[in-house]
Amino acid sequence: MAYQDCLRIIGPLERRSMEVARRRQMALTKPPGSLGRLEELSVLLAGMTGQTRPRLDRKAVIVMAADHGVAAEGVSAYPTEVTAQMVANFARGGAAINVLARAAGVRVVTVDMGVRAPLGEFPNVRSLRVGPGTRNFLHEPAMTRQEALLTIETGIAVALEERSRGLDLVATGDMGIGNTTAASAIIAVLAGCTPVQVTGPGTGLEPARITQKAQAVDVLSKVGGFEIGGLAGVILGAAAHRIPVVLDGFIAGAAALLAVRLAPEAGAFLIAGHRSAEPGHRIALKALELEPLLDLDLRLGEGTGAVLAMPLVEAAARILDEMATFEEAGVSDRPDPA
Amino acid sequence: MAYQDCLRIIGPLERRSMEVARRRQMALTKPPGSLGRLEELSVLLAGMTGQTRPRLDRKAVIVMAADHGVAAEGVSAYPTEVTAQMVANFARGGAAINVLARAAGVRVVTVDMGVRAPLGEFPNVRSLRVGPGTRNFLHEPAMTRQEALLTIETGIAVALEERSRGLDLVATGDMGIGNTTAASAIIAVLAGCTPVQVTGPGTGLEPARITQKAQAVDVLSKVGGFEIGGLAGVILGAAAHRIPVVLDGFIAGAAALLAVRLAPEAGAFLIAGHRSAEPGHRIALKALELEPLLDLDLRLGEGTGAVLAMPLVEAAARILDEMATFEEAGVSDRPDPA
Repeated sequence: MAYQDCLRIIGPLERRSMEVARRRQMALTKPPGSLGRLEELSVLLAGMTGQTRPRLDRKAVIVMAADHGVAAEGVSAYPTEVTAQMVANFARGGAAINVLARAAGVRVVTVDMGVRAPLGEFPNVRSLRVGPGTRNFLHEPAMTRQEALLTIETGIAVALEERSRGLDLVATGDMGIGNTTAASAIIAVLAGCTPVQVTGPGTGLEPARITQKAQAVDVLSKVGGFEIGGLAGVILGAAAHRIPVVLDGFIAGAAALLAVRLAPEAGAFLIAGHRSAEPGHRIALKALELEPLLDLDLRLGEGTGAVLAMPLVEAAARILDEMATFEEAGVSDRPDPA
Repeated sequence: MAYQDCLRIIGPLERRSMEVARRRQMALTKPPGSLGRLEELSVLLAGMTGQTRPRLDRKAVIVMAADHGVAAEGVSAYPTEVTAQMVANFARGGAAINVLARAAGVRVVTVDMGVRAPLGEFPNVRSLRVGPGTRNFLHEPAMTRQEALLTIETGIAVALEERSRGLDLVATGDMGIGNTTAASAIIAVLAGCTPVQVTGPGTGLEPARITQKAQAVDVLSKVGGFEIGGLAGVILGAAAHRIPVVLDGFIAGAAALLAVRLAPEAGAFLIAGHRSAEPGHRIALKALELEPLLDLDLRLGEGTGAVLAMPLVEAAARILDEMATFEEAGVSDRPDPA
C-alpha cells in the first residue's frame, strides 16, 4: 500500500461507541470513576476500535531491528554487532521481550529492517531489509528519501499482514545499537526543541539546524533509522485499521512523532505504555499529549515497557465487557443526588 | 495458630539468595539496570522467598468482607446492604475483582468476616464470621480485644490454608461499606498523624486521642473492622511462610500497618500494588516505606489495584528466571570500564 493511501483512511475516534461505553461504565457495580484511568482507557478503546465492548484477545509486539551508521561515533556502550546478536536472541526466545511477551500472551514478530552484521537463518525473523544499516548522519544523510518512504511502507505492510493473522492490540518494539541518537534527533526536530534538551549534555551530537516545519520524511531520511521509519509505518497501518497501538519508550516516541506528523489523526490510536528513564522521553510524550500507564524506570527498549502495559489495556477492555451492572447483580446503586 | 506463634517465625529477607539473584541480573542480556524497578523487585522476591529464581505461578487474592457500625453515621454514599450484595456479586463472578483476577490468572478467595445483611448460600464464600459487623466506634469500641485477636488469627488461618492449596503470591482485597473510616482511624494512629491529615477535612470524624504508642490490637478493637484485622492476619501468615504479599490500596495500608506493628519484619514481605486516589494512602505508604508499582487513580478496593499489579510482579520473577545470559546467548557484553 502506498503510504498516502494509508494516511487517507485513518479516521477519528468513533464517538457513538464511546458514548455507549461511557454509559455502561456508569452502570457497572462500582462507584463511578473508581477504576480511574482504566475507565477512561476503556472508553478510548471503544472509540479506537469502533466497538462498544472491544475484546483485545489477539496481541502482538512488532520488534523492528536495524543498524545505524552513527554508531561509528561511539554513541553506544555496546558494539554494532550486538544488534545482530540480539536479533538471534529474540529468535531463540531468550531476550527480555520474549520473556515478557510469553508472560502476557503476546506474540513476538521480529523484523530485520537492516541489520549490518550477518544474521543466521531464523525462520521466525522476517527479512524486510532496506539496506545494511543507515549511513552516518554526521557526514551524510542516513538514507535516501526513497529509502525513507520504503521503511514506512514496509511498516504499513507488516501491520496489515499481522492484522490478517488476527490482531486486536499491537505494541511497538525496537533493537538497534545507536538508535537513541537517531531518535533524539527526530524528537528534537519534531517536538521543536534542541537536541541538548532531548539527550542531555555531553553526547557530542551537533545541534541539527533543521526547522520545525521540516517534513517527517525529510527528517527520517536525514537521521534514520530504518526501524524507526518502519515503526512509524506500523503505527499508521494499525491506525488505518482501528487497531490500538501501545507505544514502548524513547524510540517508539520518535516513530510516533513521525506518524502523527504524516497523519495527525493517528495520534488518537496511541497508548503510552510507560515513561522511559531516557530523559527526552518526557518531551516526546508531551508533544504526543500522552500520559503513560507505567513509570518503572525502564530504559531497555525491545518493546518491553509496552508489553508490560498490555495487560492493563486488556484489563480496561475486560472490565467494560465482563463486569455486571447494578441491575444485573441486584446491587443497590447510591441514591440520585437530589 | 496463636498469633504469637506466627509472629515468632517471621524472619528477615534471605541475603544469600538476593546476592545470587543480583549477580544473575547483571549477567542477563540487557544493559545492567535497564529494567529499572523490575530488577530491584526480582532481587527482593529472591530475598522474600529464599529462592534464587522464584516462580510465582500460583496466585490468589483474598477478599475479606465485613460491615461497620460506623456506617450508621452516613460515612458512605452507599447503604450497608451493599456489602452483602457485593459479596454475592463476587460469588457470581460479576465484580471488578473477578474480571481482573480472571484476566491475570489469579484465584479469588472470598471470606465473610462479618457481613451484617443475610448472605445467600454461596459455596465459594468462606464463612468465618466474627460477628454481624462491628459496633459503631463513635459510641463504643468496635469490637472486644478477644474479637480483635480472633480476626487476626482467622486471617493467619486463611493464609495457611491457601498455602496448602499452593500459593506463591498473595494479594489483599476488601469489601465493607464504611471501612475507609475505620482504616483512616487506624492509619492516623499508627502513622502518627491526625485523622484530618488522613481523611481530608469534612468527614465529621472526631480526632481520636489515642497515643502513637497504642498497641495495634487495641487500635483494631477500638475502631475495627473484622476484615481489616483479618487482612493483617493474612499478611502475617504469608510473611511467616515467605510468601510475598501484594497490597491493594487504603484498607490494605491500614491492615499492613497493623501487621508491621505486631511484627516489624513482616514489612519486608510487602509489595505496594498501587497508589490509591484516597488521600490518606500516601501517608500509609510512607509509613510502610513502600513505593507503589502503579498509579492509575484507582479507589475501588476489592483487591483490584493489587491484582492489576500482580503481572508486573510475576514478570519481574520471570525475567530473572527465563532470560538468557550474555554467555548463553553469545551476545557481546560491553567492555569492562578500564
